[in-house]
Formats: sequence, structure tokens, C-alpha cells
Amino acid sequence: MLFLIGFMAAGKTSVGRALAARSSRRFVDLDDVIDTGGESVAQLVARDEPEFRRREAAALAKAIASAGDDDVVIATGGGAATHGDNLARMRAAGFVVALGVDVAEARRRADGGPPRPLLAYAEEVAATRAPVYRRAHACIDTTGRVLDDVVDHVAAAEHTWRALPPERRDATIVALGDRTYPVCVSDALDGELVRAHLPRRAALITDDTVAKLWMAQTTAALGIALDIITVAPGEASKSLRTYQRVCEELIARGIDRGCAIVALGGGVVGDLAGFVAATLFRGIPVVQIPTTLVAMTDAAIGGKTAVDLPAGKNLIGAFHQPRLVACALETLATLPDRERRAGFGELWKYALLDGDDMWRAVDACAAWSAAGGAPPGELAGVIARAIAYKAAIVSRDEREQTGHRALLNLGHTIGHAIESASSDAAHAEHHLLHGEAVALGLIAACRVARHLAGSDSQDLEPRVREALRRSGLSDDLDRWLTDAVLARVSVDKKRVGATIRFIVPRGVGACEPVEVGATELQRILRSDSHA
Amino acid sequence: MLFLIGFMAAGKTSVGRALAARSSRRFVDLDDVIDTGGESVAQLVARDEPEFRRREAAALAKAIASAGDDDVVIATGGGAATHGDNLARMRAAGFVVALGVDVAEARRRADGGPPRPLLAYAEEVAATRAPVYRRAHACIDTTGRVLDDVVDHVAAAEHTWRALPPERRDATIVALGDRTYPVCVSDALDGELVRAHLPRRAALITDDTVAKLWMAQTTAALGIALDIITVAPGEASKSLRTYQRVCEELIARGIDRGCAIVALGGGVVGDLAGFVAATLFRGIPVVQIPTTLVAMTDAAIGGKTAVDLPAGKNLIGAFHQPRLVACALETLATLPDRERRAGFGELWKYALLDGDDMWRAVDACAAWSAAGGAPPGELAGVIARAIAYKAAIVSRDEREQTGHRALLNLGHTIGHAIESASSDAAHAEHHLLHGEAVALGLIAACRVARHLAGSDSQDLEPRVREALRRSGLSDDLDRWLTDAVLARVSVDKKRVGATIRFIVPRGVGACEPVEVGATELQRILRSDSHA
Repeated sequence: MLFLIGFMAAGKTSVGRALAARSSRRFVDLDDVIDTGGESVAQLVARDEPEFRRREAAALAKAIASAGDDDVVIATGGGAATHGDNLARMRAAGFVVALGVDVAEARRRADGGPPRPLLAYAEEVAATRAPVYRRAHACIDTTGRVLDDVVDHVAAAEHTWRALPPERRDATIVALGDRTYPVCVSDALDGELVRAHLPRRAALITDDTVAKLWMAQTTAALGIALDIITVAPGEASKSLRTYQRVCEELIARGIDRGCAIVALGGGVVGDLAGFVAATLFRGIPVVQIPTTLVAMTDAAIGGKTAVDLPAGKNLIGAFHQPRLVACALETLATLPDRERRAGFGELWKYALLDGDDMWRAVDACAAWSAAGGAPPGELAGVIARAIAYKAAIVSRDEREQTGHRALLNLGHTIGHAIESASSDAAHAEHHLLHGEAVALGLIAACRVARHLAGSDSQDLEPRVREALRRSGLSDDLDRWLTDAVLARVSVDKKRVGATIRFIVPRGVGACEPVEVGATELQRILRSDSHA
Repeated sequence: MLFLIGFMAAGKTSVGRALAARSSRRFVDLDDVIDTGGESVAQLVARDEPEFRRREAAALAKAIASAGDDDVVIATGGGAATHGDNLARMRAAGFVVALGVDVAEARRRADGGPPRPLLAYAEEVAATRAPVYRRAHACIDTTGRVLDDVVDHVAAAEHTWRALPPERRDATIVALGDRTYPVCVSDALDGELVRAHLPRRAALITDDTVAKLWMAQTTAALGIALDIITVAPGEASKSLRTYQRVCEELIARGIDRGCAIVALGGGVVGDLAGFVAATLFRGIPVVQIPTTLVAMTDAAIGGKTAVDLPAGKNLIGAFHQPRLVACALETLATLPDRERRAGFGELWKYALLDGDDMWRAVDACAAWSAAGGAPPGELAGVIARAIAYKAAIVSRDEREQTGHRALLNLGHTIGHAIESASSDAAHAEHHLLHGEAVALGLIAACRVARHLAGSDSQDLEPRVREALRRSGLSDDLDRWLTDAVLARVSVDKKRVGATIRFIVPRGVGACEPVEVGATELQRILRSDSHA
């Protein structure tokens, strides 16, 4: 069964109808089978929405139950997924795709059609419902796309999802046409799943630390012979020198363009091994097996690969989507305290981007971040939400061209600069992890927001600081606002001309890009500095 | 005006009709407006084809003349472009797209439609007509593609062509959807054209030799301030060391992701600068200005970028299509004799791939290759044909995945190995240029063809040897068939597992891939060796 959810005018009915026709399935528009007792859907909603929602849920349950072996495509009304346990029922019964659309385009599409009263509140409704829609298996944006193209993307995503074994169908699908792939989370590594995404021969790249902790288990789970190449742990391995050494070793061992790379480790290994895969023989497949919180929720997803230059982090790289991202939660058990906390830098970023529900979920894990111990029950859900957010953004803006993917840079512009500066000789004893630097970058972003984005972001900086401290992270931004750090911001990749594209949080779940001059940025950051 | 030419059942009528509808233009199916005196087209062709061709030409001339300001999409019969000066008339009047289709799919599509007697001779007709179709402005393959996708590609190609100034509309368009770009040939560099394809700021990468000869003229023609970075001439600059130096220099000068790269030079500069553009900030635009025969006809087109490793050439790289390829024929005047001759290694390769017409045209330039002097009148046509061949292949198989692009590797498998070995210390005094090595690789390919592909390739090796000698190129393959060279073949990128994908010429215009074991390949190559 395939379900289409999403905002009104996103094209659920026309995409559903076309997809059903293409694949010889029955099409059901849920609104057509709701028992409204003679009223129109709009009338019943206006008169008694709770009653409408009860009847909608009943109609959905009936549609699912009566489908039986009959494969069917079901388009739902915009509110169906956001009420009760409808979304959970749909996920349990089949593949759920959320179709997205810009509010402006939704308005244009609705123009001339039947009246849609909710459009008057479109921005608000979109913001409230978006976090729910993102919990579909796949999110596909329809803005500016022709019907056939959207149907192609939905079909490719469904194909990828159906190829998964039943126990992995809670995966998130990164929907990118012929580069579509699943992100799977399981307790222990699903070796069979990884093997199914590899050609006859593969090389595994990892670092010495991860090798000691997880290599035996990983190779046992995969059950195939692997050429294993290890690098030193830490950012220093994201160099062209290590990159060249790895490439030469792979060639010397006889790896050819019919082989693939498996990246086992954190962000450093994923970025380095990903760049190797992107460029060796002009590109071979890669499967990412992230072993840190940061890598599982951010670095391993979305195809960004990179190495560093002395002038800055990630200045060289390529977009190269993996074939599969397979996360094993058990690997988090061996994460050093500091790495676990650093992961919360990225998780708080996602909470700021996604909204209040995710904020509360991350909050429920903050004590674990600070103190460790047995992971809280909420952790798997937090990781799944972060993955879903990232997948939705990447599906919409693979190569960071439309501005949507830039949202993920929240906290990263200053974060990268601090991280780079902290690895300089002068600061060697204070070297920061990526997530630690991003956490400080979030505070910086709040500060910029307060100056640029108006009054509704007044309380955000203290709220973020408090959250970070509770997670065991430092909130001491000011000690890092040195001339060296501020100078580094100006070689950031996000710089275009004299201004920097900066993501500011107006509130939890309300982040947006602004263009800000480098001098202005320095002035704002320093204005509150107690250093 | 837009003309659709191509093999029967390629979809000219349906694509033409859809494109006309989409762009509110009139659609004309040429077959419908030919005055056949009451007979059907098929009857007239069967009874008196010369008469039919006269009437077809008249109908085409009339359709062009009567279109006037009225923009129109004209689909022609499969034979229209291959008779008389019809193709030249169409090119003079508008944009000409050749739609391609596999013979097998053409048969499937024709199934159930009206009888198409030529299908019985499809393979033969396709081989004869293909070189003519390739002289369209753009070639777009329709095999396995849905109508909308083909129409999108035609529209993108037309858009790119229309954006060119009238004097550059003899360009070849590499049709790759949103990566579509023109390849333009002019006597002197068209600086305005290049400028139109650049953002506000660009850096120019070249080598010291080209810098001395053409930098002043190039920067004057472009008329914008450029950051200029030079590398040492020669293959040694295609190293990761030089790559890193160039990246760091670009960053130090303040180049950011809103800037572009201009590559001015031969294959080495194009590959290196292209790889820089592919990976700096995860990819920025590049314009290629090739200054050698090899680069104009091969290296600069198609988006393959690379650097070498000690283990072999081009082992690291990326696919990164340029925004524009701008060739200035005047730069060939300063090409050293040896480089000019080396260019004929690639040109004879294209002659073997394309067919007898191109073979004769290259043949007419062979004396110039050997002795230099004023370029023959045929040269511009030869370059244009090579570009068109390459563009057609790249449009069909951008990333070398369907096997079509692999055809361009004719002569390259052994050629690369010889080129690499020749640059080893032991051979330093005999270092071969890329085209010289490819020329030897062509002889090797003929030898393999004779052993594997049957009797019709018996005479090809002597014919190719004679052509190479007449062009001033060495045909002494046997001295290069050393153990070291044969060992290098096995780290070639084209290797998949234990066998090597090798392109063999069964005859002029009839090349095909075979899989051959490494041991078998060595045996065949050595079997005729007089070394």
C-alpha cells in the first residue's frame, strides 16, 4: 500500500492517480470515502472538525483493512496524517510519502480550484504540520516540478523501500531519483542489508579506534572478505595526504571500478572515505556505516564528502550520495563521553530547525548526554527525527542550490571557524570536536538572530545556552570570538562575494537565511561578548 | 525553426508535436506536405526514390521559406537529412536535433504501426545514416526514455543554442538536461561568448607555455580581470601536489563558490583545472578553452576531469561538465609539430569510430599533420566532426554507464599503459604524448580485432599503420609491448574484475566492445610482435 500525505495543493490526488495508473493499482482519494452524512467535507470540517477527524480516521482504517492483498494508492487530506494515530497506522500498513510544496506555489495551484479556507493560514499551518509530514518514509517536494517527474521520484523511493527486508521498513528514504537510498537504524548492524547493497568486492575504510572496537563484529556481520584500510583517528586524517595514501593502497590491493567502499566510523572517516569513493576511478559506490551520533544524524546522510586544506575545513570535496546508510545503535555504547555530548550539538541544531516536538525529545535525552549510562527510550526517536529532517532537506536540495539545504548550516558558519581555529597549534590543548563547535555556533546564531531578525528571538540565546549546559556542553562562546576565528569566517565556503549567508533562528522551528556583511557579523558577535 | 531528424521510430513526430504544443509553435510533419501526386510516401519511394527525394527537398525548401517569422517545429522523414543539401539548409534555417534510438527498440516501437520496409535493413541503414545524423546541432537518444524527458532535453538544447550569438550557431550542443552546454569553434577566441558564460569573477588556469603564447590575447579578448594561475607544462602537473597548490592559491586569492574557473590549454590543463573546479568548495563552474587538437576534439568535451597517481594516469577524477567549450583555431598555429601530429592519434580514432567520410576528411589533413604549414581547408570540418561525435556519445552516456561512452576508449586501454610506461625514468628520453600513445593503441586495437572479431578486420591494421605513418606518427607498437606496459593494463580504470573491456574496430565506422581476459590480451598482442 502507498499513502500520500502532505500540505494541500501539493498534488497528492494527481500524483496518486498517475502513480496508480502507471503501476496498475487502485486509487483511493480518502476524502471521497469518508462518511460525511451528506455534507461536503468542507461543511463537516467547518461545523464539527473533531467529528470529521473521527470519521476520517474510521475511513482510513477501513480503507487499510479492506485493501487486503489488493495493492492500492491512497491520497489523504492535508490534516489526516497530523491527527490521532493515522500516521502510525499508515506507516504500519505501507509506504508513506509526504509531498511538499512552497506556500506561494500552493496558492497559485489552488487559484481557480474549489475554495480552500485553510490557505488563509497557510504559513502557520505549514509550519505546524511540516514536522509531522517529515515523519513519512520519504519527503518529495513538488515545487516547480512537472507531474511525471514527481511520479518518477515517488516510484523510485517506493522501489527502494520495497527492496528492504520487512524489519528495515521503518527506514527513511532519501528520494533523489536514480540516486535514491535508504537510511536504516537497527540495534546491531544488519550485515545482510549492507551486503545486499555491495558489489562482489569492497574495501572498508575506518580509523584505528573504531577498528579496535567494532571491526571484528562488523566483518563478522558482513560475512564477506573485505580489504581493510585504517587511518589515524581525528580531523588530521581529512587531509589530501591521507586521501592519496588511501587511494594508492586501494589501487595496490587491486580495487577496481567494479568494487565499492564501506565507510565505518564517524564524520572524519565518512567524509574521507566518501571523497575517495567520489573520485577514485571518477567515482565508485559507497555505503556509510556511521558509528557516532554526529555521523548518524548528519555527516553520513546527504552525499557531502570532503577533505580539509590548511586554509579551512571541507574546502575540497564532492557531492557523492551513498548507496545505503546503515546505523547500528549499539556502536553508540563505545562512544567516548565527549563525542556523545558533541553529538548533542547537532541534535540541538535539528531541534531548532524542526520544532517543539523534537526540542522536547532532545531535551528528554539531555541528562544522558551529560552523564552517560543506559540510553533513554527517547534516543532512537530523536535519531530517527534528525535523519528524517536531513533526508527531507537533501531530497529537496541535493547540491545546496535552492537555499533549503543551507538551513542545515545553522550553527556551522561560526562553528567551522571555531573548530578550525581550535586545531591550530596555539589552541592544541583546547581542540574542539565538530559538535562542540557547532553548539557554540548555535549560540552565535541566536545572537545574530536577535540583532537581525527582530524581537521574537530575544529569549532564544539563554534558552539554547541552558540546553547546552544541561547536555554537558560548553556554552562559552565568547572565549572563541578571537580575531583568528572571525578571520576564518571569511574563507567559509558559504561566503559569496562580500556577504555571508547565515542561518538565523527566529525561534524553535523557525529558522531562515539572511545575508550579512563580514564586518557587520563581527560587530554583532562582539557586541555581547564578555571577553 | 526547429528540425527533428533521425532514424525511423526515433520519435520525431511525437516529440515534435509535444514540443510544438509546449512552446505554442506550429508543427509540420514533412512527409504530410510532400506532393506525392496521390500516391502514399511508401509507394512513391518504392516506385521512384530519386523522384521522391526531389519532391521531399522541394517540400522542405517550401516549408522553410513559408515559415517566415512564424516559428515552427518540423519533423522530417528518416532519409531527408541524408540526401542532397537538405541538412545544410536546415542548419542554415534553424536548430537541428537528431533523435537516436537503438535498432532493437526501433523494431519494438514500429511493431503494430504501419509497415516500415527499411526496418529489414535497420542495422545497415543505421550505420550508414548515423554519421550524417551526428552532424545535427545536437543528438539526443530516446532509447528507454519517456516522451516528456526527451522533450525536456530537446527544449534545454534549443534554449542553449538560442542563447548563442548568431555567428556561433554552428556550435555543437552537448545535450545533458540541466548540464547542457555548447562547444563553439571560431578562428580567434570569442571573448564576449566566454564572458557571457562566466560569473562576476573567475580565475584562469593555464601552463607556462600557453601563458607565454596566448595569455595576453586571451585576457584582452575576455576583457575582465582574472586571477591567473600557471602550472608547469606537461603531464607531471596532473598530480595531487599541483592540484593542492592550485586550490590553495585560489583560496588565498579570495576565489569563492560564486566564482568560476577558466581552463586555457591542452589536455593536462583541462583535466587538472576541471578537477579543481569539480572539487573546490564541492564544485564551481568551469569554461574550457582548449588550445591543442587533442583537447579541442576530445579532452575538453564531456566533463571527464582527472589527475594521475604514480600507479597510473587519470586514476583520480570526477565528472564535471563545463559551462562552455570555446575553441579558437588560431591557437593551433603555435602548436609544436609533435603536438599537432599527436592530435591525429585522436582524429584517426574518431575516423575509425565515425566512418568513411570522416576517414577521408582526416586523410586529406594527413600531410599537414606530418609537415605543418598552412592548415588545409578540411581541418575545421574534421574538428567539427570529431566534436560532434564526442558530443553525441556524451549526450547518450554521460558517466560511461551504458557502454556507449566506452567506445571513445578505442586505442586508449593500451595507449594509456604505453603513455604511463613511457614517462617512467627508464624511458624518459622516449616519453610519448597522449595522442602518440593513442595512435599506437589503435594499432593494438586492430590486432585484437583481427583475433577476436573475425575476418572483416584483416586489412585494418596495415591500413591504420599506413595512415599513421603518413600523418608523421610512429607505428612502432611492438617496441612498447613490454612486460611493464602489459602489467599496467591491469590497473586500467576500464578493468572490471579479471577481464578488460576493450573496444575493437571491425572496420572503419564499425567499432564494438568486447570483454577480454588480461592473459588472453597479452597473448594476442605479443602474437604478432616482432620484438
